[in-house]
Amino acid sequence: MKLGELAKLTFSRIEQGEENLEITGAAGLNIAKDGEITFLANPKYTSQVNETKASAIFVGEKEKIDRKDIAILRTSDPYLAYARALRIFYPEPKHTPSIHPSSVIDKTAKIAPTAQIMANVFIGKNCEIGENVRIFPNVTIYDNVKIGDNTTIHSGVSIREGCQIGSNCIIQNNATIGSDGFGYARDEQKRWLKIPQVGIVVIEDDVEIGANTTIDRASVGETRIKRGVKIDNLVQIGHSCTVDEDSLICAQTGLAGSSYIGKRVTLAGQVGIAGHLKVGDDAIITAKSATSHDVEPGQMVSGIPAFDNKQWLRSVSVFKRLGDMFRKLRELEQKISKLEEFLKSAK
Amino acid sequence: MKLGELAKLTFSRIEQGEENLEITGAAGLNIAKDGEITFLANPKYTSQVNETKASAIFVGEKEKIDRKDIAILRTSDPYLAYARALRIFYPEPKHTPSIHPSSVIDKTAKIAPTAQIMANVFIGKNCEIGENVRIFPNVTIYDNVKIGDNTTIHSGVSIREGCQIGSNCIIQNNATIGSDGFGYARDEQKRWLKIPQVGIVVIEDDVEIGANTTIDRASVGETRIKRGVKIDNLVQIGHSCTVDEDSLICAQTGLAGSSYIGKRVTLAGQVGIAGHLKVGDDAIITAKSATSHDVEPGQMVSGIPAFDNKQWLRSVSVFKRLGDMFRKLRELEQKISKLEEFLKSAK
Amino acid sequence: MKLGELAKLTFSRIEQGEENLEITGAAGLNIAKDGEITFLANPKYTSQVNETKASAIFVGEKEKIDRKDIAILRTSDPYLAYARALRIFYPEPKHTPSIHPSSVIDKTAKIAPTAQIMANVFIGKNCEIGENVRIFPNVTIYDNVKIGDNTTIHSGVSIREGCQIGSNCIIQNNATIGSDGFGYARDEQKRWLKIPQVGIVVIEDDVEIGANTTIDRASVGETRIKRGVKIDNLVQIGHSCTVDEDSLICAQTGLAGSSYIGKRVTLAGQVGIAGHLKVGDDAIITAKSATSHDVEPGQMVSGIPAFDNKQWLRSVSVFKRLGDMFRKLRELEQKISKLEEFLKSAK
Repeated sequence: MKLGELAKLTFSRIEQGEENLEITGAAGLNIAKDGEITFLANPKYTSQVNETKASAIFVGEKEKIDRKDIAILRTSDPYLAYARALRIFYPEPKHTPSIHPSSVIDKTAKIAPTAQIMANVFIGKNCEIGENVRIFPNVTIYDNVKIGDNTTIHSGVSIREGCQIGSNCIIQNNATIGSDGFGYARDEQKRWLKIPQVGIVVIEDDVEIGANTTIDRASVGETRIKRGVKIDNLVQIGHSCTVDEDSLICAQTGLAGSSYIGKRVTLAGQVGIAGHLKVGDDAIITAKSATSHDVEPGQMVSGIPAFDNKQWLRSVSVFKRLGDMFRKLRELEQKISKLEEFLKSAK
Repeated sequence: MKLGELAKLTFSRIEQGEENLEITGAAGLNIAKDGEITFLANPKYTSQVNETKASAIFVGEKEKIDRKDIAILRTSDPYLAYARALRIFYPEPKHTPSIHPSSVIDKTAKIAPTAQIMANVFIGKNCEIGENVRIFPNVTIYDNVKIGDNTTIHSGVSIREGCQIGSNCIIQNNATIGSDGFGYARDEQKRWLKIPQVGIVVIEDDVEIGANTTIDRASVGETRIKRGVKIDNLVQIGHSCTVDEDSLICAQTGLAGSSYIGKRVTLAGQVGIAGHLKVGDDAIITAKSATSHDVEPGQMVSGIPAFDNKQWLRSVSVFKRLGDMFRKLRELEQKISKLEEFLKSAK
Repeated sequence: MKLGELAKLTFSRIEQGEENLEITGAAGLNIAKDGEITFLANPKYTSQVNETKASAIFVGEKEKIDRKDIAILRTSDPYLAYARALRIFYPEPKHTPSIHPSSVIDKTAKIAPTAQIMANVFIGKNCEIGENVRIFPNVTIYDNVKIGDNTTIHSGVSIREGCQIGSNCIIQNNATIGSDGFGYARDEQKRWLKIPQVGIVVIEDDVEIGANTTIDRASVGETRIKRGVKIDNLVQIGHSCTVDEDSLICAQTGLAGSSYIGKRVTLAGQVGIAGHLKVGDDAIITAKSATSHDVEPGQMVSGIPAFDNKQWLRSVSVFKRLGDMFRKLRELEQKISKLEEFLKSAK
């Protein structure tokens, strides 16, 4: 692809370099090869610009680039432009509509003619599989599941009875959608009595779900993952939670039951969210933190339990010196005793 | 079902409402519909009682309900009564004994005639599958596995060689039972030498195991999950652990090797338990905590490393103000220096 | 096996007992039976030596053993000797080269004649499967995957397109190798745009990967797990990470993207590693800790965020008393105020 066309498709502006320069791919600063385009989004990596083998680079509007031998594409968001370039160079592979003979599909299931169902897939009663859906091998789809158009289900995924998956979703390998929620009541003998989990999971459009992630069905009602949510690997979503649009949930985070995560929330890695609480729109919970209380919209919180991130940063910086602080406190205590003694005797 | 019969089956008492009232289902306060029964177990939700569309409600003995248009069922444990109602309205679906032709079952395996073996299941040599067992698609059962009566194995589960599963168990999707324990010895070249993991996992009756949870086999001997234990999703149980009866292990908790978890213990979400230790009966370890020491029976502990929960609550409340505390300490230090100076000069 | 031969094969020295003593197996102190050999590696368990039913024991050079009725084998590393004994008594089972008729193997795939491909396995286009490889049921191997000699892939594993697995590797059940990395750019509407993940995962020789662990493919380039690395269950390795030789990663640990873990590093259970950082050779990060900064070679760090382990131990010991410390600080403040008052009035 010519640099000029690439600039147009990525909404960027050629500042240096030929419109006709042939660009063959896109990659990060340290691995891009001759002929490829790279990007600089984080000033931390500015020094790598001098060493990159890339032939072109996306940079922000103000970044200064000293090299004359690299094409420069200006844009307000170099990372976004790079993402678009990658999507141009590596489009989704075309698939061949087909149903593998080793798959086991209930005769009441409706499979769109453009879908691809691969080897050893099981599809239960009354399922509906949309156009251009790809289902990789060894997937199990229980009864009454609906899957929207253009969705991809990777191998080893289980989708339980009655769950609904939207369009343009991707479910990575070995994820579980619709497993029973973790609900029990203690009986008179202090034994656990299982509470039936007969609700469902609804996954709206444009959602991605990571490998080996688990999303529990509601006991009654639904667990809902709304449009545009992206969920990483090994995440646990408890029963009856709602994750609202465009939120991002990083790996190994866990949500207990019935919590509401707002729009555009970021839950970083290994975060914990207790049950029955609300995280407001645009809130950020930093990695390894946990909250047992509501989080206000737009707030960034940290710690276990989590509180304001700036205050937490001060607390953890003091925490390191807690040993010294304790010693100091004892010294002051002794000094004060001495002063008190002295004044007493002086009276 | 008539309200009168429901009251009898849930060991509750009609305080308000007609015996003949028809109840059609059960659901939480905020989603229950006309004709359904709901419950109030947590005073936090008392205000929702005024808005619920339910026709009946389980409440505790002392809770005051102002509404006249809702049937009231008194009981000492409304949550337990609700659980029983749900179990009445949503009984386990009946299954059809059958063996799907796409399953691959070794000829030495013994399958009870009432079992249901679904598509693409693999069952190895000398396995024994009990009465009414349901095995969903794409399950793999290695050689010499025993599965007790009425147990359900969901799709994607792997049960490794020689493991034993009790009766009335449920294993959720993509769980792994009997994977190799994580055991290595460092050799003279500082490389890791694998220690054979030739023990087994024994899961007793009435156990439930969550989706994508992993339970490692012992190196020699066994890992044992005792009767009535409930384990949530994405939990890791290390080799040679024992989890004693009726304990509850929430999502993403991890147990290192050879630890003993007592009876009726609660390990909340994302807890960590180090190796070779003992958590006493009825202990509670709160979410995100980790212990590297034994925990006494009945103790509630928190933190990393965990200690008494009440003391921890005080510590975390001070932790938030650690920045201020540090500044205060420096101020006091200066004040004392001044006092000392003054007294010196006064002498 | 005779004790004399066992001593030779485990590089240990008979101090007490007959060369001709028949040893039938190996097990831990508390479960070893008559005729078996056990070991004492941790002084904590010395008292169990008096009670063990084992007929022989590996002990360190300096440990004193009072019993006369047990054969004693001296060695500098009793745990390593025990590991070697176990490997002698429990060798890897022999397998029968075979391809199960229910497996679905693309005709362009090359399968070594000594490989064993079990039921319901799927193998895609242009794959290469080495000598003596064992692939258990319900495994999915996407196109263009290479698997080296003597590697074992347990049931339910997914290996995505283009990934490479070395020789002598073991991949435990339901692990996912090569799932898409978690990469998105925020577009002008604050929606997430997926960044294509077209790199691969390379797993070198002698690597073991735990059950339900996930290793993401790079966006461009590769994620690499080097020779001899051992990874436990439910671990998350983000895209473009490198884990260097002989490192050990315990259960439920997570690595965000593009980090480098050095040689012989230990990441204990539930550790978190932020993105784009470096953990030096031989570093140790203790359980439940997380680092957002580089860790120096050989350092042991703890806490969230992690710092020097010894300093951390002091801080957490003070943390328990933080409530008392806060009260003490207020008392001192009042005492100082009184002293200041007194001196003011005395002037």
